Formats: sequence, C-alpha cells, structure tokens
Amino acid sequence: MNQILFGEVFNLSKHPSKSTLEKKRLDYEVEVFPLLKGIQNAYWKEEKNRIKLMAHETQHSPPLRVGVMFSGGPAPGGLNVLWGIYEGLKEIHSESKLIGFFDGAGGFLDDRFIEIGEDEISDIMNQGGFTLLGTGRTKIETEIQMQKALEIVKKNRLQGLVFIGGDDTNTNAYMLSKFFGKENARCSVVGIPKTIDGDLKGNGLEASFGFDTATKTYSSMIGNLCKDALSCKKYWFFVKLMGRAASHVTLECALKTKPNLAFISEEVRKKKIPFTKIVDMCAKVVIERAKKGKNYGVVLIPEGLIEACSDLKEMIDECNVLKRGGKSYEELSDDTRKLFFSLPQNIQKQLSGDLDPHGNMGLSHVSTDQLLAQMVEERVKDIEEVSFKVVPIFYGYDGRCGLPSNFDATYCYNLGLIASLLVRDRRTGYMAAVANLHLPIAEWSAIALPISSMIQEEDRHGKVKSVIAKALVDLKGNPFKELSKYRDRWMLDDFYESPGPIQYDDNGKDGFEKTMTLELEQKKRSFF
Amino acid sequence: MNQILFGEVFNLSKHPSKSTLEKKRLDYEVEVFPLLKGIQNAYWKEEKNRIKLMAHETQHSPPLRVGVMFSGGPAPGGLNVLWGIYEGLKEIHSESKLIGFFDGAGGFLDDRFIEIGEDEISDIMNQGGFTLLGTGRTKIETEIQMQKALEIVKKNRLQGLVFIGGDDTNTNAYMLSKFFGKENARCSVVGIPKTIDGDLKGNGLEASFGFDTATKTYSSMIGNLCKDALSCKKYWFFVKLMGRAASHVTLECALKTKPNLAFISEEVRKKKIPFTKIVDMCAKVVIERAKKGKNYGVVLIPEGLIEACSDLKEMIDECNVLKRGGKSYEELSDDTRKLFFSLPQNIQKQLSGDLDPHGNMGLSHVSTDQLLAQMVEERVKDIEEVSFKVVPIFYGYDGRCGLPSNFDATYCYNLGLIASLLVRDRRTGYMAAVANLHLPIAEWSAIALPISSMIQEEDRHGKVKSVIAKALVDLKGNPFKELSKYRDRWMLDDFYESPGPIQYDDNGKDGFEKTMTLELEQKKRSFF
Repeated sequence: MNQILFGEVFNLSKHPSKSTLEKKRLDYEVEVFPLLKGIQNAYWKEEKNRIKLMAHETQHSPPLRVGVMFSGGPAPGGLNVLWGIYEGLKEIHSESKLIGFFDGAGGFLDDRFIEIGEDEISDIMNQGGFTLLGTGRTKIETEIQMQKALEIVKKNRLQGLVFIGGDDTNTNAYMLSKFFGKENARCSVVGIPKTIDGDLKGNGLEASFGFDTATKTYSSMIGNLCKDALSCKKYWFFVKLMGRAASHVTLECALKTKPNLAFISEEVRKKKIPFTKIVDMCAKVVIERAKKGKNYGVVLIPEGLIEACSDLKEMIDECNVLKRGGKSYEELSDDTRKLFFSLPQNIQKQLSGDLDPHGNMGLSHVSTDQLLAQMVEERVKDIEEVSFKVVPIFYGYDGRCGLPSNFDATYCYNLGLIASLLVRDRRTGYMAAVANLHLPIAEWSAIALPISSMIQEEDRHGKVKSVIAKALVDLKGNPFKELSKYRDRWMLDDFYESPGPIQYDDNGKDGFEKTMTLELEQKKRSFF
Repeated sequence: MNQILFGEVFNLSKHPSKSTLEKKRLDYEVEVFPLLKGIQNAYWKEEKNRIKLMAHETQHSPPLRVGVMFSGGPAPGGLNVLWGIYEGLKEIHSESKLIGFFDGAGGFLDDRFIEIGEDEISDIMNQGGFTLLGTGRTKIETEIQMQKALEIVKKNRLQGLVFIGGDDTNTNAYMLSKFFGKENARCSVVGIPKTIDGDLKGNGLEASFGFDTATKTYSSMIGNLCKDALSCKKYWFFVKLMGRAASHVTLECALKTKPNLAFISEEVRKKKIPFTKIVDMCAKVVIERAKKGKNYGVVLIPEGLIEACSDLKEMIDECNVLKRGGKSYEELSDDTRKLFFSLPQNIQKQLSGDLDPHGNMGLSHVSTDQLLAQMVEERVKDIEEVSFKVVPIFYGYDGRCGLPSNFDATYCYNLGLIASLLVRDRRTGYMAAVANLHLPIAEWSAIALPISSMIQEEDRHGKVKSVIAKALVDLKGNPFKELSKYRDRWMLDDFYESPGPIQYDDNGKDGFEKTMTLELEQKKRSFF
C-alpha cells in the first residue's frame, strides 16, 4: 500500500469524470425570460434607484472582451453565471471573448486566466462548485491593488470585469468602478450577488444565488435526522448551520423541516437573550419532552448564536480587550469571570485561543452546538426521566457545491446574460439582478442595481468603512412570523417534515424556498 | 419566547406532515417479481442450503395473524417490509391481520402493538425511517424472555413473528424458533436482513436492505465536499463513515466518489498496518499534494479504523486489562506507554473514559477522524509548502432514514411478501431473501435461507456464543480490487466524482450500488 504514493501517477483527464446525474444535468435547458431572448434589441431604462431592461430596435456592438472571477466561498449556480455571460457575449458579437481568471482576485492580480470557449462551457452547464476557475479570498482594496487591476484590464483589453461574490466583493467592485472612472478606463465593473447565507438582498435585490440549493441540501439531511429521531426515540440532534450575522439558513431549514427548536440570532440580539436563558430553554424542552416519554429531538443552531448572546458577547469583548493588553482572565469583571469559568473547560480553552486576523477571539473555533449541548447536559443530568444522548452535527461545506436546483441554474444563467448586457452598454458599478422572482419566468424582469445605493458607512474597529450592510432576518417579516406562529407546537409534539433530496425533474413551484415565497407574498400584499 | 413552552400545545396530527416528495413517493409503484404476483400458487422447493419459491396450483389458507417488529438502527426501506407482509397476508386471506409491535422487542415483550390496516399502509409506502412502530435494542436472549415471547404469541394468537433486524436479531430469531419448536408453539419465526453497514450477507444472501440508499446519501454529500475541495483549494475534509468491523460503506462511497484516500479496516487488520503508518501515509499524501500546489483533499475513514490498527488495538487491550484491575497507565508495557503518551491529550482522555457495557474501552467516544487529523497536523505543521486546514465531518445518522431508493423500496416490499409466504407455509427459522438481484426484477427469485446455516460459534470474552459472523470486505473480491486498482491515481491527481442526490424518477441501472454490481459480476464469471 505504501509504494502507491511513489508509483506512476496517471493524469488522464483535466477535469474529474462526471457522474450519471451530472451528465444528465448538462442537458437541462434553462429558461431565458422573453426580453433576454433577443438581447440585441434590449436597452436600459432608468427607473427610481435601478435600471430596467426594455426591448428596442436592434443594437450593434463591436466584439467585447470581458473578464470574470469568483470570490469567497462557493455557491451552487456559479458556473451558470459564466455560461450566461458567455452566451450573452456571443449573441452580442460572435467574436467576443470571455476571460476567466483563476482563484479569485488573487489570480486576477497575477494575470492568470483561461479563455473560456465552447469546450469549457459544454463541461460546466448546470454543474456544482466553482471548479474550472476556482475561487479565492483576496480583495482588491488598496490603491496599489486597484492600479494593478487597471494594468491587467489594459493588458487584456477588457471592456468589462464581472465579480461573482458576496457583500464585500460587490463593495470592492463598486470602489474599483469609481477608480476606473477617475482613471478614464473604459471598463465596466459588474457584480453578481452570490451567497448561500442569504444575507445579500434588499434595496431591490430579491435574492442572491446559491441559497435555494444549499438550504434544500441541508433540509434534506435534517429531514432524515428528524425521521431518525422519531424512529429511534433516543437521540437529540444538535445541528449547527452556517450563518454568522444572519440566520436565514436556519430559518429556511426550520420552515422546511419543523424541528423542535430553532434559534434565530437576530431575535436573540433584539431581545438581549443571554446564553444562560438559551440553555434554560433547551433544558426545559428536553425535560418536558422527557416527561412525555420523548428523549429525542432536533435543534437547529446558527453558527453565529454565541456572538448574538448579550452575556457571551460582553464576555468576549472583555476578553478581547484583556488579551490585546496581554492581561489574564482573572482580571475580568465579576459577572464575566463567573460566566467564563462556568463554561466547560474545553470551551474555555477554545475561547482563549488565538485572536483571528481582525483581532477578534477565534469564535469560529468554538463549536456552538457542542457548547450548548454540554451546558444542557449539565442542567438535565440529574433528572430521573431524562436520558440525554446528544449528537452534534454541522452542515456547511457540504451544501455549497451541490448541483444547482432548477431555480439557481436558471437564475444564474440569466444573471450572466444581464451582466453581458451591462458591459455592452457601458454600465459600471451595477449589480445584475432579476425582479419578480416569485412569478413565472415569463414575467421576470432583468434589472440592475447601482451598488452605491446599497452601500453605507459602518464603524469597524474605529475606522469608518463603506460596506453593503448584511440583510438580517426581519423579525417583522413573514418568514420569521411563520416560525413564531408554529414553533410552540413543534416543541413538544412532533411535526417534523422531511423534504427529501432535490429532484431535478421536478419543476413544481412547491419546492421553492419558503423564505422568498413568504417575503414576496408580503411584498405583493403591501402593494395593494 | 419563553411562554411558548408552557402555552397551549396543539396535537393536530398523529403523524408528521408529508413533504411534496414524500407524497409523490406514496404513488411509486414497486415492481413485484412474477412468481410473487400470484402468491396463492407458490410453494417452497428444497434446494441445497436454501428453499426456493416455485409456482404450483392454488393453495388455500385460513386467515393468518402475524406480528412484526423492527430492531436496532433504522435503514431505508423498513416500512416497505411492513407493506409487503401486509399485502402478502391479505392476498393469502382477506381476513389476515398484521400486528405491529412498538419500539422493537422491548415493546413486544410489553405487548404494546397496533393492528396495521389500510390507513397505516397508505401512509408509509416508500417512506423513510422506522416510524409508525419505532425500533429498539432490547434482545430476546434469556429463557425468561423467550417464555415471555411465547406468552405474547399465544395471547395474540400469532402464527408468525417477523423480526426486521441485523445479525444479532436474526441470530436471536433463530434461537426463538428453536425454543418455539421445543415448546410446540406453532408460530413461524422469520428474519429480514437489515443493515446499512452492508455486513450481513453471504451464504446465499446477496444483500441486506438499506445499504443502497444510505451509501447513495453519503456519497451525494461526499461528492459535494469533493467539489468544494476543488473549488476552494484549501480544505482537507476528513470524513468518518459508519462501519465498525466492516468497511463496506467506506468502500462503496469511495468507489462512487473517488477521494484522495480511503482506508479499509479489513486491509489494515490483514496487513497489520500500525496506526503510525496510517498517519505517515496521510502525511505523505498531504505533503506530496502540497508540493503540487494542492493544499486540499478528501479522506474517507471507517469508524472502526482505530480498532483495526494492530498497535492501537494492543494498547487498548492492555488498557482494558489494566483498568479492570484498577491499575494506572504508568504500568503499561514500554511500547504501549510510548504510543499512549504520543497521542494528543484530549484523545488520551477519551481513551481513558469509562468502559462500555461489554467491558471495553469507550472506543465509540474516540473521534477517529479527529485523532487522525490531529496526528497528521503534528507531522506536517513545520513543512513550508503545507497549509493543512482540516475539516472533520461525520456522516451516519443522516443516511439511515432517507426515502428508500427504488432498489431498496422494491427489494423490501418483496422481502415482506416472501415473509408472509414463509409464515403461511409454516417455515420457521428462515431469513427471507432474493436471488439474482443483479438481474432485472423479472428474473429475481424468491428464496429463504435457514438462519442456522449462517450461524457459527464465536468466542466472546471467554464465552462461546452462537452468532452470524459479520461479512467483511473480501480483499480478494471485485469491489476491493477496483479500489486497489485506481486509488494510486486518485491520491495526487483529482478524479473526484459527484453522484448528486438520489433521483427517484431515474430507474437507470447505472446508479446501482457498485459493491453489489462488482460482486455479482464476479460471481457470474466464476460460474463459467
């Protein structure tokens, strides 16, 4: 078994082989909404705080050269954005070129790229992951980086640069568009809204791509756990889900699977619920269920829950100040010290680990689910009826690269088409978007949003910074109201729902993400 | 948020609500193989070491009363066994009754049951989980338990008792059939082979149910991780999978997803590979890949890996002896002590935890994946090219209750039909089975295997016990050969495959489990 490592290494194919389903998905025909079917004839009409694509007489355009890159964590559908841009550019002029930069802005600044042609496109249609190009976390922020970006743009004669990324990437795209304007570089900068966290929306943006597929993937697994809880009647599944500031993923998965408990960080922050209260609440549900003979359950926990708790947050802030000053934990204020030393030892250790690059405690190293589980255990262990066998689980990375759902596949392809038109029409500093996502595709509108309209100033560690504020769960919005309405009855009785894995042949609206459906219903109602 | 707990509690439905896909699956028509279409006409023919169902003239039977229960961990398809038994009994005589006992043998011995009727059946067809009845781990082993079982059988006038479970359950079913024979109780005891671990097969049994759906579910998630590794190029996913003695699940998932490394406990045991060697091998792959610029990868680890390593096994055995004698770790032999204290502290702690009920070290509490990850990290941390960001992941509970694949749905329904016929024909001590699973359903044969033919004597802690030996991965078999043939090239280059989620409309043979296809190909070849 050892010689294998040093034996001959084969390199038979550039891309990994495709599974049966992946091959089948290559043939999935994404719908294009009517206006985008003849994009030669489309032009942009200015509306309040956005521009909207309209039909007009045929426009002629010279061939375009456009660069594109991914940024940050992957989200299902990203490859269809490339496909959409490519098709758009080819329809605008058959000699247009799409340049894909490798590994995010890092590869862009190093001028590492591939010219994307038919071969590449035919391999990536409706596929998962950010393969082909890869992604990266490098940001284009400094004057030097922007100068370098300009150089690359000039060297490659690019009329457009498309950034597929989240809030930070879109913010930086806007900054770069301003810089290019100042330097008289005729290169449009366009952003594409990506995040599985669902926290990039609002100001006319109805959804970011990836959220639909990711939450369906997690919900499929959570639904299986619900069935397992109900079959074995002896496990408590504590499921941690992605979402630091915002709990959209947890909310969506909760609406889809109806667990016994689901915490929403926004509510915890708003109501200043201390962590001890959350432990209390969990423990009460565990005890009440045990009294009904139910020593099992499912709890959904957003990874940002710890930070949302006022008492833990204060403790962490105090710890950060102490640590930056090189002081010991014994110097914490009374309340905080009490809390700190009430935590399980392994968690104390995790909390006192290294600061992250932003100077914060390594909170990402603290297992929220395990901390909660341990503290609940402590609380219930001496109660006779209770048998508390907890299984901590984390779903995150495994939902970012699934085969995109029909919604994400279609949405992304159309976003790509829109991006190509923005470049053709020399619109810069815009984010491609679609309006009326809740209606049939025939009624979608291609729009573009000035990124500037989303940006606000935020104080980050004493420095004022321009950022796109993260869209948090609206506690007055329909999705959260739906959870509030039903969660009481989900606690003690079992209303678990198991959505099962994504079925790609199923075009039924019914499988559509609940958050968006509820949000848009609300929006619709508020119109009348 | 707090009053919710003590507010009014609704109890609107006995069963959790069904998702769209679950409802759709209710309409899936399982195929019945030809002989089972007119089961009135079927009779059992004795063959070498099995009995086989044959067509014959119409048989008349009085109505039957049959009891059924689940045992052990859930596996997808279990509810279709109930459906199959029910349909079989009704076809034998419309007045037959199926009695479902709650929560496994525990509920059976307490005489807690439900009479399963049309309402129940129409709710469970092709669904996941062991809901409706629940399951349990109680075993019927002692004379007193067997007496109690006889009482329940008599009280409920049962002509048959069907146990849906794994190796232990089937062993106990056989013992009970012998006991019933001795007591002249005319109640057939029938076993149904269930386990997602895939280690209940051989002696004419081609497969146990649940393995197909479970490994497809895990492989779907692992495939997503492979894409994530390839997109972000910065994570090492260490994926732990179920399978203590046998590594069938890991082998199947490896064949489906082509990870960079996959360990097979049987190989490790056979070649006496010490744990330190496994750490070496991982570290080498991590380093070699880093030199190629690849600081990412996917490793599959069966949960039994630790126990399979000769050095760790010796250490654990020594520790167990010491602990039973109340002695300290300082008294370990030199080699063992060295190994013990070379392990990370948290692992030392886990290993020195309480003994489990069988008097063994709490090995299930040791996170195999995390132990390996930590030791590899130790080995590579000072090497310049290497950036080793490891994400430990465990898939297990989330694959046991998925909606059964078409294969498991069909297989299980037919197993149920066969069980009903065994009871009708007063066959006892048999396991229901199907031959020719690799052929189209039209060519399947209904067979039944005398459980006695699978049972052997094993030494367990000095006591001789009758058990069905677990079927281990055959190192000379086709599935393992397939892995051995390709794994060299999967190490440094990326051949990841991403099967995607189970598509229920897809009846293609291509999605069939690889282990069985390869095993049966081999079997077929060996015939000629």
